[in-house]
Amino acid sequence: MAMDASEETLRRAMADKQAAVDFQGNTVRDLKVSGAAKADIDAAVEALNALKLEKSSIEKQLQAAITGGSRAGSLSRDAFRQAVGNTLERRLFYIPSFKIYRGVAGLYDYGPPGCAVKANVLAFWRQHFVLEENMLEVDCPCVTPEVVLKASGHVDKFTDLMVKDEKTGTCYRADHLLKDFCKDKLEKDLSMPAEKAAELKNILAVLDEFSAEELGAKIKEYGITAPETKNPLSDPYPFNLMFQTSIGPSGLISGFMRPETAQGIFVNFKDLYYFNGNKLPFAAAQIGQAFRNEISPRQGLLRVREFTLAEIEHFVDPEDKSHPKFIDVAHLEFLMFPRKEQTSGQSAKRMCIGDAVSEGIVNNQTLGYFIARVYLFLTQLGIDKERLRFRQHLANEMAHYAADCWDAEIECSYGWIECVGIADRSAYDLRAHSEKSGVSLVAQEKFSEPKEVEKLVIAPTKKELGLAFKANQKNVLEALEAMDEKEAMEMKSALESQGEVEFHVCTLGKAVTIKKNMVTISKETKKEYQRVFTPSVIEPSFGIGRIIYCLYEHSFYTRPSKAGDEQLNVFRFPSLVAPIKCTVFPLVQNQQYEQIAKQISLSLTAAGISHKIDITGTSIGKRYARTDELGVPLAITVDSTSSVTIRERDSKDQIRVSIEAVASVVKEVTDGSSTWTDVMWRFPTHTNASTDE
Amino acid sequence: MAMDASEETLRRAMADKQAAVDFQGNTVRDLKVSGAAKADIDAAVEALNALKLEKSSIEKQLQAAITGGSRAGSLSRDAFRQAVGNTLERRLFYIPSFKIYRGVAGLYDYGPPGCAVKANVLAFWRQHFVLEENMLEVDCPCVTPEVVLKASGHVDKFTDLMVKDEKTGTCYRADHLLKDFCKDKLEKDLSMPAEKAAELKNILAVLDEFSAEELGAKIKEYGITAPETKNPLSDPYPFNLMFQTSIGPSGLISGFMRPETAQGIFVNFKDLYYFNGNKLPFAAAQIGQAFRNEISPRQGLLRVREFTLAEIEHFVDPEDKSHPKFIDVAHLEFLMFPRKEQTSGQSAKRMCIGDAVSEGIVNNQTLGYFIARVYLFLTQLGIDKERLRFRQHLANEMAHYAADCWDAEIECSYGWIECVGIADRSAYDLRAHSEKSGVSLVAQEKFSEPKEVEKLVIAPTKKELGLAFKANQKNVLEALEAMDEKEAMEMKSALESQGEVEFHVCTLGKAVTIKKNMVTISKETKKEYQRVFTPSVIEPSFGIGRIIYCLYEHSFYTRPSKAGDEQLNVFRFPSLVAPIKCTVFPLVQNQQYEQIAKQISLSLTAAGISHKIDITGTSIGKRYARTDELGVPLAITVDSTSSVTIRERDSKDQIRVSIEAVASVVKEVTDGSSTWTDVMWRFPTHTNASTDE
Repeated sequence: MAMDASEETLRRAMADKQAAVDFQGNTVRDLKVSGAAKADIDAAVEALNALKLEKSSIEKQLQAAITGGSRAGSLSRDAFRQAVGNTLERRLFYIPSFKIYRGVAGLYDYGPPGCAVKANVLAFWRQHFVLEENMLEVDCPCVTPEVVLKASGHVDKFTDLMVKDEKTGTCYRADHLLKDFCKDKLEKDLSMPAEKAAELKNILAVLDEFSAEELGAKIKEYGITAPETKNPLSDPYPFNLMFQTSIGPSGLISGFMRPETAQGIFVNFKDLYYFNGNKLPFAAAQIGQAFRNEISPRQGLLRVREFTLAEIEHFVDPEDKSHPKFIDVAHLEFLMFPRKEQTSGQSAKRMCIGDAVSEGIVNNQTLGYFIARVYLFLTQLGIDKERLRFRQHLANEMAHYAADCWDAEIECSYGWIECVGIADRSAYDLRAHSEKSGVSLVAQEKFSEPKEVEKLVIAPTKKELGLAFKANQKNVLEALEAMDEKEAMEMKSALESQGEVEFHVCTLGKAVTIKKNMVTISKETKKEYQRVFTPSVIEPSFGIGRIIYCLYEHSFYTRPSKAGDEQLNVFRFPSLVAPIKCTVFPLVQNQQYEQIAKQISLSLTAAGISHKIDITGTSIGKRYARTDELGVPLAITVDSTSSVTIRERDSKDQIRVSIEAVASVVKEVTDGSSTWTDVMWRFPTHTNASTDE
Repeated sequence: MAMDASEETLRRAMADKQAAVDFQGNTVRDLKVSGAAKADIDAAVEALNALKLEKSSIEKQLQAAITGGSRAGSLSRDAFRQAVGNTLERRLFYIPSFKIYRGVAGLYDYGPPGCAVKANVLAFWRQHFVLEENMLEVDCPCVTPEVVLKASGHVDKFTDLMVKDEKTGTCYRADHLLKDFCKDKLEKDLSMPAEKAAELKNILAVLDEFSAEELGAKIKEYGITAPETKNPLSDPYPFNLMFQTSIGPSGLISGFMRPETAQGIFVNFKDLYYFNGNKLPFAAAQIGQAFRNEISPRQGLLRVREFTLAEIEHFVDPEDKSHPKFIDVAHLEFLMFPRKEQTSGQSAKRMCIGDAVSEGIVNNQTLGYFIARVYLFLTQLGIDKERLRFRQHLANEMAHYAADCWDAEIECSYGWIECVGIADRSAYDLRAHSEKSGVSLVAQEKFSEPKEVEKLVIAPTKKELGLAFKANQKNVLEALEAMDEKEAMEMKSALESQGEVEFHVCTLGKAVTIKKNMVTISKETKKEYQRVFTPSVIEPSFGIGRIIYCLYEHSFYTRPSKAGDEQLNVFRFPSLVAPIKCTVFPLVQNQQYEQIAKQISLSLTAAGISHKIDITGTSIGKRYARTDELGVPLAITVDSTSSVTIRERDSKDQIRVSIEAVASVVKEVTDGSSTWTDVMWRFPTHTNASTDE
């Protein structure tokens, strides 16, 4: 996140100009004090004003550079977010949870249309991933005993750094306060030296990596205080983000609400591997609630305390991460943002996933395959492909065990938001649970013919060790057996040449002398019939709520009403996602039309098309506006007893279709077997003004 | 739960016979002691043995009567449960959660086939209820702040009574211990007096209503101790069954994991009513996780600590609970178990729901409509209609505010299990949240013409009250205004006749004297344009996991293998529920057949049919057995390059179908548009022994 060249230039110019203004100001003052000639003073004032004008011009350019375009752009981004948010809340796509009790930060309900959108997104996820890829779906509880999350590392490391207002006790995320401080300073203090600006920009870039001490030092250095009260802040300290509870009546079994669904899959590896006929690769999947007790949730629907995750754990032989179906997606091109482009200040670029894998930018075929499948999933939902990029984690962002990691980031009014993480986590998770549980979570590869392998054999002589080390003999014995090949072979040659060797036993905290008669070290050739190994896991993890929110923003637009007196809201959801597929309106309130509407409704139900009848007497224009605001693709207006009008949401085109044909036309358009343009050719266009908006 | 007539007779006969045996035993002893003649002694012993034989015969009959059939029946019920359970666990329909860490009681995962069954059941629920009834679906968080569950009564009353082993601290449900004691005693102590047996039976019947004191007294009276240690037990005390947690970093906001999904709907009533165009009736629905921290979970999958609920809240005008679609279901007949039949010791009887409503057995049409819809839902899933009954709550089972309540109970190896509750909860929940939140949760009925109504008007004279009561005037004023019509009219006449009256002000804790000049009480006629009221709510609540478990038991059967050497397991799931709809087997491992299997797989995917290819080389019989055990309705065997065999699971009938037609045949059978018998007529039957089991 290097400072933009033009911004840096402008900051330098700004600082220079400020210095020039200050200097010229002094000059004017000096001239006045020394009683110089009026003409000289006037000339100096004129020069000062000219400098001020130049400064103001640079200031404007700088401001524009900082806000990434123009002030107006930034304002309209906020206005856009507000317009989407208002529509979503008014039409109950979502509702702040427990609203009548003034709500709880970070908890939201899905109202009826939101709930339908979510169900559609999840059904498509299941179709696109679980069914098409033959994944093994599981469904595990949210309540999780501590031991599982101790093994996974969440008990010790799933924390954010927190500071407290020392007087009121209000809690803040330490990194958020520092981030806000830097952003605010950069936006408002335009005449700060370019070096200072670069320092703040650098902090924003590396903020996520700061330790508690580093964060605390910066907060002190910049004199950051509690936002509301301006009180001093405590030192930062880690706060675990899991909701804690206890299981059973005794209060003795500590448990947590799961922070992710993945652990439920890992602990079932053995059964699932068996279920899959003891064959690799295979993938397991889970859709379910996850919980994070955020310190102070911000960003509305994007950072919440309870959310739906859909996670895949694809288990694969670490020595063979090829994917048989990679060839089907290798040609796909989309925006990728590899590590190199990020660190060299370039931007995301369009790449072919086949090339990205063959050039080694993406670590392996399986990872590449999932990146491509995620691309297809998101764009088919209606995510704008120009505002979707795959960003590779920088080395410092990745866990030490991860082989490679890419985030699907979607641009919305909050910036680029991580919505799907696709990580090659190597063998970390299965090893962690193997160790903690004592149950071996491994796979076997049977060789078609036995293989000859050289094996290190360390054979301590117990009797000699007992005589030499008495009570410590067990520690020495275990340390000898734990030597790796290099250590053992070095000891062997030392014993052969010198007869004895100093050997550090870490469990004793000291070195002992090992003599030749105490241990035999050799290499033996053995026949092996199978290879036993811990599978690697490739994990695509989907934040369903974030995807849905970005989809709302990408689908939203406004257009003027026919009279031009107001802006109407539209969600251009694909049929796949739309909460219902069509509405049925009798043009006027009369029994005959309502009867036909009911008849059409029955045929739509029989065809499996979700729909709603609107028999309110409001104008057809108002009813269209209402259905557009819910993103319903088609509206059927009953305006005669033989045929009806079907109107498409975005084009507002209308066609006339017989009552018998209407369900099948709606079906073929909404299930994707025909496009609207296809059916437009087959039916007469309708232009009757009475049903127009 | 009156004692069964024959059991009571047998218990009396048993007690009589025992007395006769004891008497005769004494007689024998006396004869021996008094040195009576050998012939006399022999005769007495013979009589004693005859009595013992008779006693033993009665004992056997009694034992049979208690276990509801025969000992063998009881044993086979256990064996059946074990057989189902083994199959379910071996084929990963479910997995004890966190198994590698030795699990947690009451937590289970759904493995791949279980997960698919659950998804199918939920999809059908959404179709049958949400879509067909135009319900408003919502999706609320599990984490719930305390205030909401305080209002609903869960914080104070969602408890079970618990006792602790006084030495080890182990916790038990007090009612379970008493229940176990009574059952055990009744089964094993066959010679107990019939009165004693009746007492224990009565306890079993009224156990659920016992207070902590009553339970404690019985536990003391019977000397019940901790089951494992025989240590004494503490007095029973209430244990709240909600998982507690805290929300946010401060630890100050107490929260719980919701014990039901209903509250999320109630708190959103106002928005949902508006969304529905301010019209009643309407229903809202929610599917989601619920949590109960059971004291000591038993009964496997039936009593768990986390489970999926699907709940409907149907809001209706309390003055009009008719239902426009009741006529569509009024003819349905099924087993009902009304209050009267239960208390008079009769059994459930087949009734027509139309009659049950018109005879007033079921409180209203809407309740009756939902009972019928639940019947259709459960039987279409595959629940045996002979083992499904609707049991009305007894007066003492129902909450005081409930108008009527029926449970759909399904019989399985654990007995009759409550799987769906259908309750008319009147206005209780909305009123509770109105009061606690201060937000009015009501509906309006606009009158077509204004109505004249008489209204009570209480107008206190503030000045006089101030002079008379000084600092207490506010309390007096509020107490006057809070009078109901009866109180006010009594005061009015007292003031008119006596000029003053004693008036108790509860907020002051004393009576004050009210004089005529302090308050004017009158009745005025007003015009009203609308009626404002709190809607009643009718709540069908589905325990999805329990329904699924009962479905497993009702669908399971075994049949001998072809060789007759083993029993094969089959789940006769309807296609609607089956985890996948068909399997595809190449008869032998060869590339040509595998290619055709893939081609068929593509056409099945295109038709939206979930399926799996099994290319393992095992015998076709074994592969059929494997697919039967998962309840897959159809299996396609690829045994030629032009046509294939389709085999139906339960009949084992096979037909030959061309490769082109296979997907459409499978589709029409599995989506229910044709039956297997229908298609059997259209295609040649296949009898080739090679593909037989």
